Formats: sequence, C-alpha cells, structure tokens
Amino acid sequence: MALRDVAAAERNDEGISAVLGILRQRFGERFQTGASIREQHGHTTTYIPNQMPDGVVFPENVEEVQEIVRACAAHRVPIIPFGTGTSLEGQVNAPGGGISLDMSRMNRILAVNAEDLDCVVEPGVTREELNTHLRDTGLFFPIDPGANASLGGMASTRASGTNAVRYGTMRENVLALTAVTADGRAITTASRARKSSAGYDLTRLLVGSEGTLGIITSLTLKLYGIPQAISGGVCPFPSVEAACNAVIMTIQMGIPIARIELANGLQMRAINQYSHLDYPESPCLFVEFHGSEAGVAEQAETFGEIATEYGGGPFLWTGVAEERAKLWKARHDAYWASLTLRPGAKGLSTDVCVPISRLAECIAETEADIARTGLIAPIVGHVGDGNFHTLVLMDTNEPKEIEQAEEFVGRLNMRAIAMGGTCTGEHGVGQGKKGFLRHELGEAVDVMRSIKTALDPLDILNPGKVLPG
Amino acid sequence: MALRDVAAAERNDEGISAVLGILRQRFGERFQTGASIREQHGHTTTYIPNQMPDGVVFPENVEEVQEIVRACAAHRVPIIPFGTGTSLEGQVNAPGGGISLDMSRMNRILAVNAEDLDCVVEPGVTREELNTHLRDTGLFFPIDPGANASLGGMASTRASGTNAVRYGTMRENVLALTAVTADGRAITTASRARKSSAGYDLTRLLVGSEGTLGIITSLTLKLYGIPQAISGGVCPFPSVEAACNAVIMTIQMGIPIARIELANGLQMRAINQYSHLDYPESPCLFVEFHGSEAGVAEQAETFGEIATEYGGGPFLWTGVAEERAKLWKARHDAYWASLTLRPGAKGLSTDVCVPISRLAECIAETEADIARTGLIAPIVGHVGDGNFHTLVLMDTNEPKEIEQAEEFVGRLNMRAIAMGGTCTGEHGVGQGKKGFLRHELGEAVDVMRSIKTALDPLDILNPGKVLPG
Repeated sequence: MALRDVAAAERNDEGISAVLGILRQRFGERFQTGASIREQHGHTTTYIPNQMPDGVVFPENVEEVQEIVRACAAHRVPIIPFGTGTSLEGQVNAPGGGISLDMSRMNRILAVNAEDLDCVVEPGVTREELNTHLRDTGLFFPIDPGANASLGGMASTRASGTNAVRYGTMRENVLALTAVTADGRAITTASRARKSSAGYDLTRLLVGSEGTLGIITSLTLKLYGIPQAISGGVCPFPSVEAACNAVIMTIQMGIPIARIELANGLQMRAINQYSHLDYPESPCLFVEFHGSEAGVAEQAETFGEIATEYGGGPFLWTGVAEERAKLWKARHDAYWASLTLRPGAKGLSTDVCVPISRLAECIAETEADIARTGLIAPIVGHVGDGNFHTLVLMDTNEPKEIEQAEEFVGRLNMRAIAMGGTCTGEHGVGQGKKGFLRHELGEAVDVMRSIKTALDPLDILNPGKVLPG
Repeated sequence: MALRDVAAAERNDEGISAVLGILRQRFGERFQTGASIREQHGHTTTYIPNQMPDGVVFPENVEEVQEIVRACAAHRVPIIPFGTGTSLEGQVNAPGGGISLDMSRMNRILAVNAEDLDCVVEPGVTREELNTHLRDTGLFFPIDPGANASLGGMASTRASGTNAVRYGTMRENVLALTAVTADGRAITTASRARKSSAGYDLTRLLVGSEGTLGIITSLTLKLYGIPQAISGGVCPFPSVEAACNAVIMTIQMGIPIARIELANGLQMRAINQYSHLDYPESPCLFVEFHGSEAGVAEQAETFGEIATEYGGGPFLWTGVAEERAKLWKARHDAYWASLTLRPGAKGLSTDVCVPISRLAECIAETEADIARTGLIAPIVGHVGDGNFHTLVLMDTNEPKEIEQAEEFVGRLNMRAIAMGGTCTGEHGVGQGKKGFLRHELGEAVDVMRSIKTALDPLDILNPGKVLPG
C-alpha cells in the first residue's frame, strides 16, 4: 500500500522560464525566487519531502490573481495557492515546479454583516485575525483546526477541528465564494442568502478541492453569537469503548455539545508531562457546552449522568473562563506534548473518520496494531464526529521506521474505509492520501477527474494533488 | 423579463421510438405509455403548461436504472427522473419528450443506523414514510417542505421548509448518495462518515442538480433524536418590519429556534377564514422550540421578551401537543387557505431568499408592488432563513393576468438578487427560474454548463432544466 504519491512531475522548463520573466517584470519585489522563500513555500509541516516552486508571487487583489493565472495558462505552468503552509498532506508542494501564489497580502476583511451573521473576507485572513476583528461585535467564527490557518486554506482542505460536532466544518460554514478559474475568469458561486436552490452547488464543489478547480479570492462565512455561557470539563473513563459509548449516548440524546474530544491513556500521559498536570492517565473526554447559564449547567449535569452510566467519572466541570482555558490549552498542546514522548522524532499524523458506531472498535484495533507494530503513537479524536488522529513518532533518518509507519497508516486507512468511513476527515488528500481515494470512492474518482478536466483542461491548478493519476 | 423557459425542444423521434420498443419488451407492465399516466408525469402542480413524456418506466433497482440509462444514451433520448411530482418549477416536464423514470417502486428503507443517527433509503421513499418507519426509534428526519415529497426529489431540488433554520436543508442533511451517471455507471459519492475531506464534494454537487447530472438511486440521510420537549406559539406584530427585527434578534442571541414563520396580514385573514380561527389579522410569527423541558420554557420566555421589545405580543405559547398541532396545521394549510381568497384561481408561488437584514425591506417593497399591481397575493415566509413565498392568485384563462403575475415575479426576483439574495431559496430552478440564473450568478453559470457537458455530453439527463440555453 503506497501511502503517498510525491513523484516529481515532468517540468515545463521553457514555460516556467517565460512566466518567471513575466512575473518578475510585472510584480517586482512582490515576486521572489530566493531558495529559502521557495523552500518555505514547499511542504514543510510534515515529513513529506519538500518540492519547492520556482517562484513565489504575492497578489493583492482579484485582478492580479487573474493576470497571474492567465500568464501561467498561456505557458502551461503550474500554480499552487498558498495560505499559511500548515496543511499536512503535501498540498503546497510543487512536484512539477511552477508558481506559488501566496495569498497573505489578500488579507482584508471586506464586510461584517452582524445582522446576517456573516462576513466576507479575503483568503489570506487567518481565523485568529478574523476573531480578533470580530471581538467587539459579540460574534465569532467557530472553526478551529488548531493551527492559525488562513481561511482560504481552511476552505480548500475542508478543515474543521474540535467544535465541528456543534458548528459543522468549512463545508457547512462557507456561504459563498469568489474564485478565479483556470482560464482567468472571476466567478461568484452563490449569493449571500442563507439557503438557495439556484443551480449547481459550486461553493461546496470548490470547498475541499485544494486549489485544483479554482483559486479562492474571497469567502462569505457564517458567524455565530458568542454563547452567553460556556461550561466544560474533563472526564476519565475505564476504556476507550466506555468513552465512545458515552459520546454516542450524549449525541443521541440531542445534547447540543460544542466539543467532545477523546485522548487515550498514552496521550493523557504526554499531556500531563508536558503541561505539568495530573489528570488520570486513562482515556479521557474533554467536553464543552455552549448556551444559556441554565442550559450549560443542565447539559453538564446530564453528561455527567451519562458518564457515570458507562463507568466514567468523576466529571469535574467549570464555568470559570480561566480554568476552561487551561483545560483546552492542555488539549490543544497535545501535538507538542506527543512529540516529547520521543525527543527528536518527527510526527506523522493520521486522520481517519468512521461512523460513530464503529469508533470504539476502530480505535481498539488501531491501538492493538500500534502495540503489535511497536510504534509510539498517541491518539486524540474529535469523537463526536467519529474522527481521530494518531501521531506516529518516528526517526526520519531511519528509512525502515518511515516504511513501518507508512504501512501502519495504510492499514489504518483501509480499516476505516472497510468500516464505512474515510481516510481523511479534515486534513484533505494532497499527495498523502491519493493512493486511498479509489479504495474509498471507486468510480466516483473518474467523475471527479471529468470535472477536473472540464474546469482545468491544461492541468495547471495545483497539479498532482487530490486525484490519483 | 421572461419568467419561464418552457420552449419545446427538438424531438429525436427516431431514437424515442427505438427506446419505447426496448423498454416495452424489457419492462412489460412496468412500462406505460397511456396518455393519462404520461400527462400525470408531466408538470401538473403549477400553472406551468404540461409537457408530457413519451413513456413512463418504473425501475425497481439500480441495475434497472443503469439499463434504462444505457438504452436512452445509445439512442440519445431524454430521461426525466420523477418522485411524487410535487415540484413547482416544471422540473418533471419533458420539453423534448423522452422517458419519465418513476422512482416510486424504489421505496425501500435499506438501513437505519440509530447509533450513527443516519439511514439509507431509496429515492422513492417519501418523508412521511421514513418518519413513520422511524417512529419506534426515537429518531426523526426533520426536513419538511410541506408536500409529502420523495426524498430523492427533495434532494434533487435542495428542498427545505419550516425547520431549516434549525436543522438545515437537504444540502446539510444528505451525507452521501449513490447515483447512475449519464453513461450508466453506478457511483457512490461519499462514505457514511459524518465529515470528510476526501476529494470533490459530489454529494453536494448532485443535491440541487434536479436530475441533470446523475440519477439518485439511494441517499444516506442524517437523523435527529426527537426532542424531549417542544413548545410553540403565535405572536402578532404591528408590522412586518417589527416581526423581522424580532427574528433577527432571536437568531443573533443564539436561541436555537426550531421554526420561525411569518404570515402577513392578508395571509392571517385567509388562515382565520379557512381554519375558523381568530388570530389577530396583523403580521404574525409562528414559532417552535425544541429542547429539554427547562430549555424550551427558557427559549419561549426569552422570545416573548424580544417580541415585547419590538412592540409584538401577546405571545401565547404552549407545550401541549394537540394545541401545537392545531397551530401548525393552520400554518401548513396556508396554501389552501390562500386559494379561498379567490375561488377558482390558480396560485403562482414565488420563492426568493435574501440576507435577513434586507428581509423587512424586501417584503415591504413586495407588499407595495402587490398593492400597486392590484394582485391578490398573501405572503408566508421561513423568515429565520430570509426566505418567503407569495402566492399570486390568478385566473389562468386570462392571459393578461398571467402576464401581469409573471412581470410581478420578475420584479420580485430581481429585487431579491439586487439585495444580495436568490431567486429560489428551496423550490429550485427547473424551467421557471432559468431566465434569472445568469442575473444572479453571472459567469458561474458557464462553469455549471462546463460541468453539465463533462458529465452528460449527450444532454440526456433532464434536458432543458436548470441551465439557461
């Protein structure tokens, strides 16, 4: 099972050279070809090898994006949109070279429509920048993938994170997009209406397409009122299965839980060590409730009763902001905490998502596989959605370790697919998961390819990503 | 402004004749060509003229759908999928003749996964059949467009209805589909995972495509726990504007309202007359809350306070099921009630949806237009989403009345588009709204056309619908 497909593509050196000349002349200092900036725009956040672009351009508006795309189209040169570079599956690599389109200067917040609970932003705005800007409005944008990613990048990978169980993913929270097509047209996919039956859903088609069908130039996003009250806590369980059963019951009872995150025993040990805490080192659920004062208290109490029913507890919860912040900092630091389990190692993150009825089984089989393979790989999960990550810690100087880790990931992905799930809940396909797409979706992949060919016949938009060759 | 495009298309008589022969031989009694059944499968629920197909076939499984599609593809004959025929924009008409694919025998519920809160159904299952089947599970499927439509049809038009403000539309509630493509392949668009970043979102591409990109053969749908408690009531307001402002505040405060429906003064008069009730004949909001006992009481009280703030009230609410049923029956009967305002008239339903900040203004301008034009046209709205309908009552024997009504609808649609909204919130495009799509979405329509051509190069899947020529 080949985990990733990072084969270098054939280079169109003549075309690239022509485009470099055009962009240098047109964009001056806003076009860079130094080795370090190019390397930084290839893939750097994972162990996937870096494949750097030939140049990096920093457009400032839609017209400039159109100009760049037209130049690249005329010379058949790849264009790779770049947000903050925090994607995990090689999405910003340039296997055949080409131009990295760095959107960081398109970072204006164009409108906040408080009455409509929406806003319009350029793709380079990060989620933290947006929430800082919204601070005085009483509104917030909930999607939180951990990294302070750009909103364009988050839309491109269909990102989500800890509170998708309540607020959905980027799929549910992008109302409309503007985008530049492969031939340089600027399109608007939808109006600002909350719902619409006006033609094909191009918004959702572009969300998750990782820059392969069009280049996002603005996003209309749903916003939410900051909840009147928030409560949260940590609850230990005797087993992953017990914790998963508590999750299922919580959701089935319609408790509008805002976050429900699992960390397994090893992960809790890492968290305790890293953050100097003394949580029980058994599987734990980190939970959060949003609502009215009375509502969140009721939710927390009902959850506590469910936990007890499945042998969990004690469930200690709090409405005090500082205590909650500490709790979620510990959860958010899980990645860094994990790395301390094996100093010097690099982490390979997995991202399967299964129907929740299969979650306990999938995690148990995966833990057994980890033990059998002798890996160090803690588990955290957005378990309300059936999504969990392992972080396989490996010495990337040891090819055998990489191979072993990749084989493990292959088994994990196929296990999730066999259980009616997906190889990627929120990280996207990039180069890393292309080999699994056909296993998961069969001939639907050919339909995707037909769409790609129709919308990008020259294959210049982020080529070599998402679709298997 | 041409409201609808129902121009008869060129007929491929030779191909149609060949396919009629093939289907007759293959399907026997399950293939019908009688005039009355053909007429019943053309468009009958609105004033849009009926364009009947040449034959109606009743497949019982995916393989039969594939067989029929392959026969039609071989002879370039149109195929028009048919659910219950309750669509409103000419979606099931056959402007160039062809075969109506009646899905009513594909009406099995294939799986109910209670722990996962999902189910898998064939497209001919109606929403009431599904909810009857679910009765003992404590679960329900919320989307309610009024008519007892088929779930395949509801997905095809991206339907919603009174409780979309809480539960979303078909866009948010279809997890995955199986479909037959124009060349007869059977594809599965997604796994049963709650979220996924695995490639292009073919699920959402097919939802709302009105049978023009593929024929839905099964749907995986989200289910919800039946709320522990439900409360609801009716609240009068001094003006549409006051009612709309109360809606905005209710949503902005994060009250998880399940339904919030507006009826204007004329509509209330019709409801009172038809259902022998004595509601105030000023603009009213019909509201419903879902949650725990304490939760719904808290929500109802907070809403009552908001209503008072905007000059509304008294807000009388109840948790008693029989009283709520009576209230919602009155709301659901609004269509029939409206028809009694002008006995013998036919209704032309409109379907604009605007950002909620523009809703009061849009309704006020529309009421003024109605008065100026001298139409009888009550208004109801799913105002939590910014979506409202007028039902223009007209004597269809008077061409001048039809023309006047169509001009009114044209102005209304353009008004909504100018306010950042859409000409169709939930009814779809069909033949009726094709003329507005380019006004609303510009060059995005060309991208839609590219996708249509890529996936259905022979233009046999419900031709003449959705996309303007």
